[in-house]
Amino acid sequence: MEGISYEACAVAGRYQLDNLIMIYDSNRITIEGDTSLAWTEDVRLRFEAQDWKVLETDGHNYEQIDKTLELAKRENRPVLIIAHTIIAKGALEMAGDHNSHGAPLGDDLIARAKEAAGFDPEKKFYIPDDVLVRFRCAVEEGELAEREWNHLLKQTPYIEQNEALERLLHPDFDAIEWPKFEAGSDVATRDSNGKILNAIAKAIPGFFGGSADLAPSNKTELKDMGDFPKGKNVHYGIREHAMAAITNGIAAYGPLLPFSATFFVFSDYLKPAARIAALSGLQHFFVWTHDSIGVGEDGPTHQPIEHLSQFRALPDFYTFRPADATENVACWKIALKTKKPSAFVCSRQKLKVLKDDIAYGGVENGGYMIKKRDNATVTLIASGSEVMLALQSGCHLEERGIMANVVSVPCYELLCEQPNEYIDTIIDPKTKVLAIEAASGLEWYRFADDVLRMESFGASGKADELFKYFGFTIPNVIERVEALLAR
Amino acid sequence: MEGISYEACAVAGRYQLDNLIMIYDSNRITIEGDTSLAWTEDVRLRFEAQDWKVLETDGHNYEQIDKTLELAKRENRPVLIIAHTIIAKGALEMAGDHNSHGAPLGDDLIARAKEAAGFDPEKKFYIPDDVLVRFRCAVEEGELAEREWNHLLKQTPYIEQNEALERLLHPDFDAIEWPKFEAGSDVATRDSNGKILNAIAKAIPGFFGGSADLAPSNKTELKDMGDFPKGKNVHYGIREHAMAAITNGIAAYGPLLPFSATFFVFSDYLKPAARIAALSGLQHFFVWTHDSIGVGEDGPTHQPIEHLSQFRALPDFYTFRPADATENVACWKIALKTKKPSAFVCSRQKLKVLKDDIAYGGVENGGYMIKKRDNATVTLIASGSEVMLALQSGCHLEERGIMANVVSVPCYELLCEQPNEYIDTIIDPKTKVLAIEAASGLEWYRFADDVLRMESFGASGKADELFKYFGFTIPNVIERVEALLAR
Repeated sequence: MEGISYEACAVAGRYQLDNLIMIYDSNRITIEGDTSLAWTEDVRLRFEAQDWKVLETDGHNYEQIDKTLELAKRENRPVLIIAHTIIAKGALEMAGDHNSHGAPLGDDLIARAKEAAGFDPEKKFYIPDDVLVRFRCAVEEGELAEREWNHLLKQTPYIEQNEALERLLHPDFDAIEWPKFEAGSDVATRDSNGKILNAIAKAIPGFFGGSADLAPSNKTELKDMGDFPKGKNVHYGIREHAMAAITNGIAAYGPLLPFSATFFVFSDYLKPAARIAALSGLQHFFVWTHDSIGVGEDGPTHQPIEHLSQFRALPDFYTFRPADATENVACWKIALKTKKPSAFVCSRQKLKVLKDDIAYGGVENGGYMIKKRDNATVTLIASGSEVMLALQSGCHLEERGIMANVVSVPCYELLCEQPNEYIDTIIDPKTKVLAIEAASGLEWYRFADDVLRMESFGASGKADELFKYFGFTIPNVIERVEALLAR
Repeated sequence: MEGISYEACAVAGRYQLDNLIMIYDSNRITIEGDTSLAWTEDVRLRFEAQDWKVLETDGHNYEQIDKTLELAKRENRPVLIIAHTIIAKGALEMAGDHNSHGAPLGDDLIARAKEAAGFDPEKKFYIPDDVLVRFRCAVEEGELAEREWNHLLKQTPYIEQNEALERLLHPDFDAIEWPKFEAGSDVATRDSNGKILNAIAKAIPGFFGGSADLAPSNKTELKDMGDFPKGKNVHYGIREHAMAAITNGIAAYGPLLPFSATFFVFSDYLKPAARIAALSGLQHFFVWTHDSIGVGEDGPTHQPIEHLSQFRALPDFYTFRPADATENVACWKIALKTKKPSAFVCSRQKLKVLKDDIAYGGVENGGYMIKKRDNATVTLIASGSEVMLALQSGCHLEERGIMANVVSVPCYELLCEQPNEYIDTIIDPKTKVLAIEAASGLEWYRFADDVLRMESFGASGKADELFKYFGFTIPNVIERVEALLAR
């Protein structure tokens, strides 16, 4: 019933995946009762509409299952096998009852069911001899097949394939020709990110991915690298959830390094899959552009507010929000070496490139001091597009005799992992701390005395007008700092 | 392509909604290019599989559209009209081009297209006389129909229906017989919440709802009130996203007060609809049970960690997490009067009822001091199941000569809305503050010097074992408080 199952099966049908057989255990039972309570679909028709081959079998008849599987293997497109079953079959009066889903059967019923099936009701965890023999034979057959396979692997053409696999398993990140960005130039981080994706994909055979129908906006097109399945660009369609789940599957498989992409606000559609990526430690690269109120006139529906907070609160997940193109490169260098999911939260609007080159260690620690002033009484913390505002505000504060250090935090989670000694070197405990973020920003109170943040949804307007409207201005930063110092 | 469209249309098909005609503008274009890039579905078959009637029309032929709509109105089930269209029709060389979706056509093309269509290319925002006459006639026809309708409304049987509508529009919340809970008894807040839902539904005609196939676990069954559409219990199936979107629609319609329900961790599946509820100011009641690591052996997949943070960061949305059954009642009293979405985050495990009756004002302010001690040097803040731990720890601290106030915060967002003067009365600025929450809890740093929180995913085990394992124990609270005082 879940929407993702339709999305994913539509993708399988579109690509006519020919090594996919799905067995659907159709017992017509849900937790609340019979499926008809909530569901009257024609499953065969539904899958045929998505270009699958549909077969049916009695799910309790082993010979029929075997024959149906053999038929399925002959198809060169995805196959659904509808296996008609009875839930709790053999459990006497509980067979077919929806209560058997969640509640234990009880000792009495188990004993009576065993008896009815011809087993000794007293015996538990008992394996009859004939079953044992059959399973032990299966082990021998499997070992034989493995030996034959290993023998084959040593012959052509498998030698070549093994070498290709080795290259996938041990990607040479030193071969990446990272793009360079000139300090002072204006580059949206979605653009720098697009160049980085292309550079990585060129050098690393297993690096590929696509967008949920937003490649032109996400800047994720891998140029001259063709379309999946022959090439590297996957067109996932408007299916964020399936895209992220499929990308999780590719990452879980092993040798490939896949990315997915959408607008940051649409990360909501794939949140369950982002959580699975974190739980399972999958190296899935999420590209999320249009990262704040600076997305243009689409308005509040397209302007993330709570999303940075929600992903920073997710364990085992790294949310990178680079301040400029150069930090963007540094973030990718870290993510490629991290066996966890990473998200790249990138701007639509242009951002000034702050430096040609960056002290790699600074970004690796999640945050670093981007501007140090002697005798500072204030620390300004920011990420992404707000780092420039912090730097500019620092200069204006200096003119007023208020010395402020400025800290850029491209990865909040990495900063939280650092020892207090490091954090104290960049956020001097003797200073008053103001964090600036054009988002909910509640998590910044961990480091800050005050947070200049979005306290409502956004609005429709040009990026610079909205930043002004919502108080992300030099005068407002100065006012907040002075209020902090007066506390 | 989005999964929610399948979920919602399956529900429409299941209930054979007979006042629903959907027109599908089939121009075969997406942002990345032709739909065939990502999509090969047979739309007719797909909707027929979901028990819809499917009609087709040339989407540019007005007479055919009119005839098709007349046919559709005669059906007594949901109807899809596939309208075959050309994107940017009439825009000469851009007709049918996917670039016409996002990019402006340009002055030159617009002028040439006007000329080709027989218009004066110089004229902008021009309405030809015959069009004007036709539209003015339509206004007159509409006014006539409205007058007839208003006349009808004054006759039987409409008088009775009007009275029923009045009762829906002005629900009498004073008629609710709120359940009472005995201090000292053990009641899971999912159970108290279930009793509250039943009490409200009995007294308020427009209050109804259902769960995404988890009613027995969410405790949302409205007893003896029948199944939708004749009764009040809706079986949404395993379709969280459509459930929440449909509930949004019902709330937007006006006179009804709908709720939806699932496990808190599955709120991920409906996050986009929760955001729409907040953006649109819809009075949608979200029931989210199984609210922490205390959900039993299902393990980390079923244990929310980041979810409280993510919804507290969402603007215009209230996340209630009551500490006991009595707070639960107080939270509902507030939510019924709030024209915004509210979520009820309830425990699976039993919680001690702390009070028979609660100072209503305390909960209305989001948080209140549940235990005050003279000369306190410490404030413990908690919500939900951790309030009991805070109270117990306060007693143990007192034995050690450390006086701690205890603050219960059933609604973080409401507390944040209070003036600083109020907050200072419950969280004394002279005290060291420890917040306790069995979740990510980053947002508590706004009020707290330290937060005892979940810093990882959960684990599989019984609630009490897991609370111990993750440090939610009296000794650990004491240790954290002593460390704070020693800072």
